[in-house]
Amino acid sequence: MENYPKFAVIGGGSWATAIAKILCVNLPEIAWYMRNEEAVEHIKTQHHNPNYLSSVEFNIEKLKLTNDINEAVAYADYIIFAIPSAFLGSELSKMTESLNDKIIFSAIKGIVPETSLIVGEHFNKVYDIPFENIGVITGPCHAEEVALERLSYLTIACGDAEKAKIVAKYFSNNYIKTKITDDIIGTEYAAMLKNIYAIAAGMAHGLGYGDNFQSVLMSNGIREMKKFIRKVHKMKRNINDSAYLGDLLVTGYSVFSRNRMFGNMIGKGYTVKSAMMEMSMVAEGYYAAKSAWQLNQGYGAKTPIIDAVYSILYEGKDAKRTFKKLTEKLD
Amino acid sequence: MENYPKFAVIGGGSWATAIAKILCVNLPEIAWYMRNEEAVEHIKTQHHNPNYLSSVEFNIEKLKLTNDINEAVAYADYIIFAIPSAFLGSELSKMTESLNDKIIFSAIKGIVPETSLIVGEHFNKVYDIPFENIGVITGPCHAEEVALERLSYLTIACGDAEKAKIVAKYFSNNYIKTKITDDIIGTEYAAMLKNIYAIAAGMAHGLGYGDNFQSVLMSNGIREMKKFIRKVHKMKRNINDSAYLGDLLVTGYSVFSRNRMFGNMIGKGYTVKSAMMEMSMVAEGYYAAKSAWQLNQGYGAKTPIIDAVYSILYEGKDAKRTFKKLTEKLD
Repeated sequence: MENYPKFAVIGGGSWATAIAKILCVNLPEIAWYMRNEEAVEHIKTQHHNPNYLSSVEFNIEKLKLTNDINEAVAYADYIIFAIPSAFLGSELSKMTESLNDKIIFSAIKGIVPETSLIVGEHFNKVYDIPFENIGVITGPCHAEEVALERLSYLTIACGDAEKAKIVAKYFSNNYIKTKITDDIIGTEYAAMLKNIYAIAAGMAHGLGYGDNFQSVLMSNGIREMKKFIRKVHKMKRNINDSAYLGDLLVTGYSVFSRNRMFGNMIGKGYTVKSAMMEMSMVAEGYYAAKSAWQLNQGYGAKTPIIDAVYSILYEGKDAKRTFKKLTEKLD
Repeated sequence: MENYPKFAVIGGGSWATAIAKILCVNLPEIAWYMRNEEAVEHIKTQHHNPNYLSSVEFNIEKLKLTNDINEAVAYADYIIFAIPSAFLGSELSKMTESLNDKIIFSAIKGIVPETSLIVGEHFNKVYDIPFENIGVITGPCHAEEVALERLSYLTIACGDAEKAKIVAKYFSNNYIKTKITDDIIGTEYAAMLKNIYAIAAGMAHGLGYGDNFQSVLMSNGIREMKKFIRKVHKMKRNINDSAYLGDLLVTGYSVFSRNRMFGNMIGKGYTVKSAMMEMSMVAEGYYAAKSAWQLNQGYGAKTPIIDAVYSILYEGKDAKRTFKKLTEKLD
């Protein structure tokens, strides 16, 4: 039998389920941790995740399913985190297994609320994981389309190209194409920032702006993202690569994006609180807007879209008037 | 009474109607030529264009409507062409009035089939109009949203900044924002090329590719457009400005785009001929694909998307197999 790296997927949501499906194509076995005990039992007996991408059938002989995060961590060389960033802290607090010598890949697109850090930086600063053992799985990818095996492109970022290549190898199949990059900071910030632009797109839609304006908003959004990321980590990157622009577009133009939906409700007149209650979960971009805005107080990049979203979400500013002012700053 | 420049709009379609509406905001009078005599009579008596944007009401005291292109040309300092590029040749052949000292702005997004030139180049080469008297009106703008007075951003390109400023001034109002540039070649090529990418987006959709792939296609499309335009006319430009990326997005993501619709039919299995017959008009991108491909035989830019669309439209290649190969070249 071929020697294969041991992967663990952490999370039971749609993106975690999609990743588990992808990894089962090339690997004889993976570990898969999720908090929900009933879901684990359901997958074991029914071979489907009852809550997310429930059409996907798993060969359970390949799955080491567990409710114990430590079991999954102990098993794996490569640990892929795919839970909402808001729950990362509480999951990590259960961990007694050491992360030393583990390779951590984040498939989380957001900011860790407790530290206002992107996930890679959080693991580096809080858990002393060296950057060469940290990576990011990103790219324009609705999990629902992975379930349907529709062709998708993922970008695997890691400071250590060899590790990126290994992860890319096991993610690649006839419906997933991969490329690798060493821009772990830029790709993760892009994945986080794009949620703010998706909220802005939703707000614009809710306020009655049309497709002409949306295209202007997205074209300003990618220019703004470039400026922001350049301040965080200057390196040669093409902001129009799929991991940056592609990811922005798939989210900004998706009517299914939770972030866009959240913005849409606010554009239509919901308060931030009532929009959150209505959605019964918090959109990642909500935290991202605060972190990005705060970070940028130091960087000083020109980010009128982030500023507008922040002031509506956190300073109680009126969405209609704020967007009217924003339109003067776009071109 | 303030001195104002004399504008003529050439064309009776939706974009011409939108432009006439916009110009009537700031000008006391414009000339408006259209071929269709009944439409002219209808507008005169009913104040609406019966065929396009028929919800728009015109103050006919502001309109010098005519069926005689020479009358409109004789009247105007600034002539704005807004007819399908396929009809430009036949309209110009009716012209006996000289274009000397006229300022020609193209709102046509396409290639003149007879000469395979973009419109500005056509006027320059065939009519000896100097480039400082040639301009382009472009930007992400569905005419339908102008009818609804939804905020839209236009880019006014002219080699002579003073003329660009004048046109921008008279186009600007509470629902139209303008910016100026001297990149007449780049903006016009972008407007032409984006129709090819919209055909590609339609083909992909027709073939069953999903949103993940569309975002990858668009992100590769803008990189390809940048390479192509740089070969045609190298200058400092930000390809993510609204006139380039915004225009690509508003067309590529629009289900109403004729080019996208045309591509969609071919993706679904229509032959090129039957798709054209079904649509009862030719999508601009059909000509653009041929011209761009031919031009690029000299330039040698890497343009896998244009090549794929060309080979499907003109070489009878199978759409499914061609796209399968194309997916290997994208990232």
